[in-house]
Amino acid sequence: MLLHPENSIAVIFCARRTGDDDEAYQAAAASMSELAAKQSGYLGQDHARSTDGMGITVSYWLDDDSALAWRDHPDHKVIRERGRDQWYSEYSLHVARIERGYDWQK
Amino acid sequence: MLLHPENSIAVIFCARRTGDDDEAYQAAAASMSELAAKQSGYLGQDHARSTDGMGITVSYWLDDDSALAWRDHPDHKVIRERGRDQWYSEYSLHVARIERGYDWQK
Repeated sequence: MLLHPENSIAVIFCARRTGDDDEAYQAAAASMSELAAKQSGYLGQDHARSTDGMGITVSYWLDDDSALAWRDHPDHKVIRERGRDQWYSEYSLHVARIERGYDWQK
Repeated sequence: MLLHPENSIAVIFCARRTGDDDEAYQAAAASMSELAAKQSGYLGQDHARSTDGMGITVSYWLDDDSALAWRDHPDHKVIRERGRDQWYSEYSLHVARIERGYDWQK
């Protein structure tokens, strides 16, 4: 959980899982997180998933070009299609530019 | 899970729970969600919480004025302070302007 600078990009991915094929999903999710972290402009991600299948992943990028490059990464495209085929019943994705941020630790 | 328009505001709140006082936290979270939904400019929210205590709430607002008014709502302020005292070990909050979005349903 990091604080990201003004003008960086947050990609907010909210998805509801079908629950099918959980093991393959977990492996693909871990592999995509690892691959994303290697991309130019990657700043970090936050992730939470409820037991009812609702999940949110927010990935943070230095600029829109790096967010777009990740969207267009060939391995990411393959997994996205598999997600629609097997893992997700619905999702929304918003790309947003950070205007301000705060963080706090006990 | 709704699709929100360009130029609307996403408030991305990522928090790690202490695990203390879970019942009071749940009641406060439900009451804050209800109250937020009554505010002018509120568009919706998405929420997920992992069993390890990591939670993400994204609330969506018509414009920055409505997001700021919710930040400054007196009841919200009281609960935020209680959150720091009792419920959270750390959090980050980013305010971001939506540039584009997509949604998909099976």
